Order: sequence, then structure tokens, then C-alpha cells
Amino acid sequence: MSTRDALLASVSERVETSGNKVSVVGIGQVGMACAFSILTQNVSTDLALVDCVAEKLQGELLDLQHGSCFTKNAKIHASTDYSVTSGSRICIVTAGARQREGESRLDLVQRNTDILKFIIPQLVKYSPNTILLIVSNPVDILTYVAWKISGLPKHKVIGSGTNLDSARFRFLMSERLGVAPTSCHGWIIGEHGDSSVAVWSGANIAGVNLRKINPDIGTDKDQEEWAKVHRQVIDSAYEVIKLKGYTSWAIGLSVAALAASILSNSRRIHAVSVYVKGHHGIEEDVYLSLPAVMGEDGVSDIIKQSLEEEELERLHKSAAIMHEVQKNLQF
Amino acid sequence: MSTRDALLASVSERVETSGNKVSVVGIGQVGMACAFSILTQNVSTDLALVDCVAEKLQGELLDLQHGSCFTKNAKIHASTDYSVTSGSRICIVTAGARQREGESRLDLVQRNTDILKFIIPQLVKYSPNTILLIVSNPVDILTYVAWKISGLPKHKVIGSGTNLDSARFRFLMSERLGVAPTSCHGWIIGEHGDSSVAVWSGANIAGVNLRKINPDIGTDKDQEEWAKVHRQVIDSAYEVIKLKGYTSWAIGLSVAALAASILSNSRRIHAVSVYVKGHHGIEEDVYLSLPAVMGEDGVSDIIKQSLEEEELERLHKSAAIMHEVQKNLQF
Amino acid sequence: MSTRDALLASVSERVETSGNKVSVVGIGQVGMACAFSILTQNVSTDLALVDCVAEKLQGELLDLQHGSCFTKNAKIHASTDYSVTSGSRICIVTAGARQREGESRLDLVQRNTDILKFIIPQLVKYSPNTILLIVSNPVDILTYVAWKISGLPKHKVIGSGTNLDSARFRFLMSERLGVAPTSCHGWIIGEHGDSSVAVWSGANIAGVNLRKINPDIGTDKDQEEWAKVHRQVIDSAYEVIKLKGYTSWAIGLSVAALAASILSNSRRIHAVSVYVKGHHGIEEDVYLSLPAVMGEDGVSDIIKQSLEEEELERLHKSAAIMHEVQKNLQF
Amino acid sequence: MSTRDALLASVSERVETSGNKVSVVGIGQVGMACAFSILTQNVSTDLALVDCVAEKLQGELLDLQHGSCFTKNAKIHASTDYSVTSGSRICIVTAGARQREGESRLDLVQRNTDILKFIIPQLVKYSPNTILLIVSNPVDILTYVAWKISGLPKHKVIGSGTNLDSARFRFLMSERLGVAPTSCHGWIIGEHGDSSVAVWSGANIAGVNLRKINPDIGTDKDQEEWAKVHRQVIDSAYEVIKLKGYTSWAIGLSVAALAASILSNSRRIHAVSVYVKGHHGIEEDVYLSLPAVMGEDGVSDIIKQSLEEEELERLHKSAAIMHEVQKNLQF
Repeated sequence: MSTRDALLASVSERVETSGNKVSVVGIGQVGMACAFSILTQNVSTDLALVDCVAEKLQGELLDLQHGSCFTKNAKIHASTDYSVTSGSRICIVTAGARQREGESRLDLVQRNTDILKFIIPQLVKYSPNTILLIVSNPVDILTYVAWKISGLPKHKVIGSGTNLDSARFRFLMSERLGVAPTSCHGWIIGEHGDSSVAVWSGANIAGVNLRKINPDIGTDKDQEEWAKVHRQVIDSAYEVIKLKGYTSWAIGLSVAALAASILSNSRRIHAVSVYVKGHHGIEEDVYLSLPAVMGEDGVSDIIKQSLEEEELERLHKSAAIMHEVQKNLQF
Repeated sequence: MSTRDALLASVSERVETSGNKVSVVGIGQVGMACAFSILTQNVSTDLALVDCVAEKLQGELLDLQHGSCFTKNAKIHASTDYSVTSGSRICIVTAGARQREGESRLDLVQRNTDILKFIIPQLVKYSPNTILLIVSNPVDILTYVAWKISGLPKHKVIGSGTNLDSARFRFLMSERLGVAPTSCHGWIIGEHGDSSVAVWSGANIAGVNLRKINPDIGTDKDQEEWAKVHRQVIDSAYEVIKLKGYTSWAIGLSVAALAASILSNSRRIHAVSVYVKGHHGIEEDVYLSLPAVMGEDGVSDIIKQSLEEEELERLHKSAAIMHEVQKNLQF
Repeated sequence: MSTRDALLASVSERVETSGNKVSVVGIGQVGMACAFSILTQNVSTDLALVDCVAEKLQGELLDLQHGSCFTKNAKIHASTDYSVTSGSRICIVTAGARQREGESRLDLVQRNTDILKFIIPQLVKYSPNTILLIVSNPVDILTYVAWKISGLPKHKVIGSGTNLDSARFRFLMSERLGVAPTSCHGWIIGEHGDSSVAVWSGANIAGVNLRKINPDIGTDKDQEEWAKVHRQVIDSAYEVIKLKGYTSWAIGLSVAALAASILSNSRRIHAVSVYVKGHHGIEEDVYLSLPAVMGEDGVSDIIKQSLEEEELERLHKSAAIMHEVQKNLQF
Repeated sequence: MSTRDALLASVSERVETSGNKVSVVGIGQVGMACAFSILTQNVSTDLALVDCVAEKLQGELLDLQHGSCFTKNAKIHASTDYSVTSGSRICIVTAGARQREGESRLDLVQRNTDILKFIIPQLVKYSPNTILLIVSNPVDILTYVAWKISGLPKHKVIGSGTNLDSARFRFLMSERLGVAPTSCHGWIIGEHGDSSVAVWSGANIAGVNLRKINPDIGTDKDQEEWAKVHRQVIDSAYEVIKLKGYTSWAIGLSVAALAASILSNSRRIHAVSVYVKGHHGIEEDVYLSLPAVMGEDGVSDIIKQSLEEEELERLHKSAAIMHEVQKNLQF
């Protein structure tokens, strides 16, 4: 008799399902930071990894499994075959190519669209009720693409969007004011990238609107140059990439927070990339980040912020650009 | 337009379901300690409370809800109507009468059986796939009763059993040795009560068997009188009740740990009350505590400990007593 | 040789100190909910309890210790002698008498002042650098009294104040709006009690000021009657006490959050009872709740909210009442 | 008046100290996995990073800071100057060179010794009461070197040792038996590396000694070839490095667990590299891993395991090798 049989008397069959399965597609620095954040912050104890590089995938799998004593006995699986994602409540997509030298941005989008054309149907096949959380860049366009390919309702296809930009903004506010980041409130919306919008009208500390204190905040007239804070947010990714070669920790934590809000049906508000046609007068069929209520079924509501003229203009401009790029995409 | 409609643009209907719902029946000191442990230790963010005393129930509900900012936005519901438990993955039963003056133990068992006859069918009606976790005393008999009434497979009806006794044993070991409780390993099995069995043969620290160091440990010959530690475990409930009127915190934490092992499909081993016929030569149709592997579907395996003659005798005696009581019960 | 000596080779002496010690004075429902929240939410693993009722104290101690396997091996001590609190970073005071029938409020204050006259010097004697966190009611006056008796700088003597009222307000907002409590922002300041002030001008969701949406919010003209939400906050304690006999869970969680902000030097903002002379034109020597930045050394900054005329009037009236009561106190 | 001054009324000076400061020296994959594990598992909210590569250091700092909204407002600092580590309770050393082609192991040790000769005095200068936790390889020799250089008592200089090897062993046991890793108990001791020792005599599940079930376990006669599990543990690092290029997650989690045990004075037992002269008949002045009780002051006790002849031989052989290498080191 084997040691196992001598030790254990079976009472019922072991089940391998779980109510909290999360899959991560793409195990680059971003994908692994997402996976590790989810495990260490107890967002889920049931994780599947998918990538096409079998060796590295096996290495990451073993390295995470070796730590399972320290992550509440999390069960981790990995495969190049998408069947490993079966039954996921959330599929996080971090896969995607980086811009090549001399490659236009549009070319990059098409390449990543081609990648999604392969990935998304596989994910939906094995988890027809999943929520898709897109992290790959350019995130707004790729979330739109993922939505179109997936056939899922729009509230179940979400981009990580400016949730991270908002966190960076709040950290930078905290540095200026000496107050904890979570007690600094400010929202970055629109495109996750150069054309993002800082909603200065809503920036507040303990309900004290900063614009009431400093009416010029965020404008050129502001003697304290708070607009620089928004500038720093936009430059953050470039700067971190320049310094360490890639971004990982903050995006991983940001995505883990989104996953936690979904899995616990928390109804917390995050700035995420959502389908914005019909909001703020946007008429294009595009995804951009707005504050949204997140729960078990994805996005249930979008917050109607009262934006200023200039903020609206930037949003509309972003929408037009997205749309322009999208209409040339083939999928 | 209402403030809500002016603020929120609905994208999809809100869902009220969740993958982690836990219900607690009975909101006495034990039930509330279970509920509060589950919320504060993030075992679940979806909790339903049931009790027949509507006023107190409403008070406990409000008091927990007022703290939801501090418990990860947990959603808490309460009602005297069992429909509030609908869709629970675990139903924790703490309801039950206490012994009245002059009342025989058997009378008490019959009274609590009558209570279960009302509760259990309601729970199973609203959550046909639930796991029943029985905490009410005498826990071993009532778990058996719950199993019979419920019609559920035996691996899905579990008593909190000696999980708490084992925790007390480990704390007392830790006090003697100056080592953290979680690094002290020892198991109390059998009846949750006066006839429980301390499995001295397995007590160890870092794999060092205490019996190898002190061959008389647990026996009358032991000069260090370690048997007293087991005695203290048995007396613990009596002592705490004498001192503060009831037990609450430790049983609440113990039950929360069991719920966590189930919800995260952890496959951790706990000493819980399981159907023991066929184990250790027990021939009666009874529930007693043995170390068991717990996962999403309840108990999957029971550990085959090699018990000594005297330990076996005590187990068999307990089984006989349980059986004697049970055969006179009406349900 | 003892089992312990046969098992362990001593390398260095065990230390019993810790950097995170918290003491709780008074083990009624409030004190125990504070203690249990601190343990289960991992705010501290080093806890001391003090009370004058030795038996109940021993019962609560044992009940918490029996759960130490489930609370990260927390070390818990208890004694009627204040030396057990030695070296605390925070001392939480929940002790105090309740109003007797026919007793005036002033009489109650004097009785609780007399209790503090005994407790506070003992705490400061054993932990001269401690932060005092006063929970006993009437909390604003008793925090002032504790400050005067203690000789500690004012930023190290803090009342739990309206941190709980604000949490209740946010929960009630969340119920009306369908948004997570932690994403609902609103502040209750002033007296922890009937004359508290809801700062409607700062209430917001994702930076969207509710007053912009509903200009009458909080006033008599408001057709949605949001003022009722504030009314419910004020009535909350009364209602919970009427229904279950006392409040416990929410105040425990609220105090644990304050302790966490201090121990982790988080610089989070909480509405707590602080020395308000010189703020908002208050000239009296009193404590009232205002949003304050909390860190390792207690309160470092008070947020300058821009209050409306009526809000200021209520604050000033509260200050005058506090002062009137205080000047007749003997200590 | 600045926005800050218009917003905040200062009550007391902000303090930057904390009771839980942890420093990490070396920000390679291992150092960053340690840092990130400590932040995400709430082991500390006060972290300092040191490295000599200023650019990458700044990149990692920003990336972590951008996530501070998601890590309980952790405060993170980084500098090439060791003054940033001032007042640390634990200093984790992950710095060190990797073996160059054609370089002998001894040469590597000398190179890393030279690095420690620079690092350790700086750490001790700024945190004279710190605990040194050495992770750099070869960890046993470098822990000895760090101890000698530091002038600290031996219980305050600890190597991460076989804590990770033991975790890997437990994971592999769990795979064979279908039981949670934390419910599988087994210890790897001795050298962190090829000559480590699996203490089969202590391997157990719920106190059931596996050797009682399978007397040949771990030996050549064992038909189930459990010795392969130990072999896999030894090969783990090589395999993960071959597959993904380095190890990171599991060692990071393992080190975070050690830091947690120290900071919370938990008295948990871990297999860590300790000064072993006088234990198990070892006469050399060396460090090797043994199960040890860890608390606020480092290692307080070493567990006296009863090792078998062959296990002792391997330990002694390891000690002799360490000693041979050490005696040629210059520091």
C-alpha cells in the first residue's frame, strides 16, 4: 500500500474547482507582478498562468509553487494550452508585443490585435462567463478589440486603464501634502497615456476641494504648478522604463485591486477603461477610462463627473484618435 | 432626477450573488464571534445572519453594517426568514438551547434536535449545495442529526468538533515550551467534551516527537505531568464559562478557520467531527472528531492515525455513548 | 532533564518587549470588541488587557489565548495591575460608568472623571511615551480630562470621536447610492453625539460633490431628505442599544482602524477628537472631532475644512457646552 | 499661502521613524521579491532599499511608490547611501556577485566577502541594534562572515538558509499526498545547497510519522522513491534558474516570513542558518541551518532534533567543508 493510501482514507472525491479562479495570460514582468500581487494579497488562491514560452512558464510556475506555504496554500497551474484557464471568473490579459524600432504605433496595434484574435476566443471558450481584464497596451484600443472579439457584454470587458494613473496621482499629491495616499483623492480619466485628463475639479482632501483653496490649481496661472503633478503622472511610465527597463510592481498591484473588487463584489469605484459611447457626449464606439462601480459582474455603473470645457475637449479628442486607429484595424 | 440618477449611469444590473456567501444561524455570543471573525479575517465579504429574535438580530445587523468601511465593504444581511441564506456555500449552525436546571442531558439533546428539525430543512431548501458546519452542542450528536435530517452526503455535514480543543492544546504546549502555538503540533480527537483523546504519540515540535524525549508523556508516570495539559483543555470551556459566563472568541476564530479552509479549497487538515463508522474499528453510525482534509466540497479524506490501545478504547467508548443517546432521539 | 530542556538549546534570552504593544483598559463589550478587532485584523500581536473585575478579566484572557493559533501567535496578557501595560505604544481607554437612573449627565461625567483620575496616571507611569486613545463617553470631555491629567502633549491624547459616526454616514450613503462604503466620502465632525455636524459641502463620490448635483442636500428644502441620513447617524447608537443592549462591533473596528494608522505611521485622515482651541474660531479649551492626520506620534495636522455659517454655529455651540461642563469638573 | 498651509494646521512635527523599519540591500530579482513580499503581505510599511546602481534603484523606488495606495500607504525610501537604512530593525542582505565563467567557488566567496566587508559595517553603523538577515549565496558562509564583520551577537545574525528548501519540500510532499503544504511537515537542514539534509525521521502529517507507515522512506530501499523529493528540492534552484534565469518569488516569500516572525516576536520555528558550534557535536566555527525559534531579538533557541547516524555525518561533512572555505577567507 502506498504511503498516501496508508495515510488517507478517502471520503469524497477531491474537487479542483473554486469560486475564485483567476487566469493571467502573458508572464512578462507585468503578468508576473499581477500574479504575485494576487497571491500575496490573498485576492485569489486559485491561479492559472498561460504563455507561449513553455520553459519560462514552467520556471515561473515552480517558483510560485515553491512559495505556496507562504501564500495560504494557493493552487497554481500553468500551461501553454488555454484549457488550464477553464472556469475562470477573471481573465487578465497582459500578453502583447512591444513597439519595434521604426514601427509605427498603428502597426503595433495591429500586431497586438492579431495576438488578441488568438487569445480571446480561447479564453471565452473555456470560461464563457468570465470577466476580461485587459492590461496590454495601448489598453483602451485593445480593450475595445477584446470586447468585439469576445462577444461578451460590454460590462464584462474592462481595461486596467487609468486606475494606475490615479494611484500615481494620489501618491504624488501625498508627497506634496504630507498626507497618506489613500487619504488623497484625485482622478485621472480618459486615455491611459499621454492624453489623459486630470479632473482637478474633484481633487480633494477630507472633502476639502483643492480648487476652493487654490482656484488656479492645474492651470498655467497656478504659482504652485500643480499641473506638474499631472505631467509627472504621464511621464511616470516613461521614467520608470528608462530607469529600470519596464514597469511592474505598481501595475501589478493596480490590477490586483481591480480583481479584488470584482471577486468580492465590492462595488468600489475605480477609474477603468469602459465603453464610453453616450457618456460625456462621446459619439464614437470607443473605450476610455471613467470612474466606474465594479462588482461581481464587472462594471455596473459609470460615474457622471461634471467635467469642464477643456477636460471635455481632451476626452473628445482622445475618443476621436482611438476611433481613427480602430477603424483601420482588421479583426 | 434623484441624486443617485444624476450621479450614476447604469451599465448593467447589479448582482447580489457572490461566490463566497456564508450564513450563520443563531446570533448568541458564539454565532456573533463566528460572524465577526469571518468578517475581520476576510474569510468572506458576504454574510447572512438568521435568528428568531428579530430585535436583537436587527441590532447586530446594524452594528456590523456600521463597520463595513473597516471590513472591506462586506455585505451583511439578516432576517428571521431563511430565504436570506439563499445560495450559501457554508451554513454555520450555532443555534440551540442551553441545559436547564434539572434537565437531563438527553432532554437537552432532544430539544436541540427539535430545533435542528426546523432549521436544517430551511437551510437545505435555500442552499441545496451548501456545506453544513455545526457548532451547537453536543456537537458530535447534533452533527449526526443534521446529517440525517439534511439528506446531504456525509462529507458536506461537518461538526466544529475538536478543532478548538486542538488549538487550546497547542496554546498550552506553547506556554510550557516557549514556542509559538502554530509551531506546536498536537491533536485532540474524539468527542468534543469530557471524553476527548489527546494523541500523545503524534505531539511534536519541528518533527521532534515529544514521546521520544519523554517516554512517559501523557501517562501517570510522567514527572512533568503533561497529562494536566489535556486536563486543562477539557476544563477550558468550563473554566471560561465560570469566569466570563460563556465562551466566544476562540470558538469564533476556530470556526472562521474552518470556513476559510473550505472557501479557499485549501486542503488543510483540521480535527473536525466527521462520520467515523468504519474508521479505527468503529462500528456505530456516529460522528466524532478525527483529523480530516478540508476543501471546497467539505471533507475529502480522513487521516489514519495509528492510535494506541488506550486511545482506541476511549474512542470506542465515546462512539458507544453517542450511539446510545442517538438511538433514543426522535427526528 | 525537562522536556523543554531536552528540546530546546537556548541561544539568547527571550525578550518580551515588542514594538507594537497596545493596551486596552476596560473589558466590557466595547473594550473586548476593540481588543478582538485589533487581534483579528493584525493591527498588533502584543496586547494587554486591564480591568478591575479579576474573574471576567481572566475569562476573557483565556478565551483570547485559546485562539492564538488563529491570530498569528498573538501574545495576550491581562491583569488588574497596570504594570501589565508597561511599554505600550497605545493605551485605549474604554472604562467608565454608564448613566444611572435619575443621574444627571454632569454627575456621570464627574464619576467617569474620577475613574480617569485613577487610570490615566497609572498608564502614563508605565508607558510615559504612549498615545492615549479615549473611547469612554462622553468622549470629547473625557479626552480633555485625560489630556489634563496625563501631562502628555495634546497631540498624543486623542478621542475616538466621530470616526465611527463618519463610518456610519458612509455606510448609509452607500445604501442610498449602491456604491461601496469606502468609495462614499462624507465627514461627521464636532461632538460625538446629538450635536454632531455633517459637513455636506464636502460629501462626494469620486470627487463629484453631491451639493453640485443636489444643491439643497442636507437642508429642509431637499426633496430627497438626505438630512435624514445624518439623523440616522445620530440615532444609530440609541437604536443599536435599544435593539441589542449595547454597541460593540462598529466601535471596535473604528478604534482598531485608528490604532492601525498610528502603529504604521500611515498619515491617514480620521475624524477624531482633538484639542480644537484656535481652530474654526473656537476659543474654549475643549476637545471636539475634526479630520486629522494620524501617524506614529498621534495627531500631526488638523484639516482646515471650510465650514458654512450654520455648521460653524453648531460647532461653537458644542464647544460652549463642553466648556460649561468641564469648568465644573473636579480633577 | 501654499495649498498645503491652507489645508493643514500643524499640531506636532511629523515623525519619520517607525517601529518596523526593514532595509533591503541589493535590488536584483531576489532583493526586489523580498521587498515586494514584505510590502504586499503587510510585514512592514516602512522600507528602505540600498544598491550601488543609482538609476535602477530610482526606478524600483518609483515603481513601488506608485503602488502605495495598494500597500497600506507604505513609506519607501531608497538611496545609494546607507544612511537611508538608519534605525532598521532588520537589514536583509541580498547583494552579491554571481559566479563568473572559470571562477572557482572560493574566488566567488572571497569576492562576496569583500562586498560584505563594505556593506555590513555601514548597516551596523546606522542601525546598531539591527538583526542581519543574510540571503546572498553561499548563504551559510556569508552569514558567518557577516557575523564576524558585524560584531553583533550571534543570535542577531541569521541566514535565510533552508527555510526555502523546507518550503519546497513541503510543497512536494503536498503534491504527492494531496494535502495542503502547510499541513505537510518536514524539515531540510544543514547547508543551503547540494549537501542539505532531509530529516525523514521527523516528516509527518497530522502527527503521523511517515516513517512509521513507510519504514524505508528516504532510503534506497523505498519503493516509492521519496528520496527523489529531497533530490528535487536540491535541484529546484538549478531547475528554476535554467527555466526562467533566476529564482525570485519563493525566496522573497521565504524571507518575508522570517521578517514577519522577527517583527511580531512570534517565536515561530524556521530552519535558518545559525551558529552551530556545539550543536550535534559540531566543533567548527560555522553557520548551518537548524530549526530555530525566532523572535524580536533574532534566534532565541535551537531545536535539538535527534538525527540519525547518516544525517549527522552529512551535517559534519558540511561543517568541515564550510570551515575549510572560511579559513582561507580574508576579512
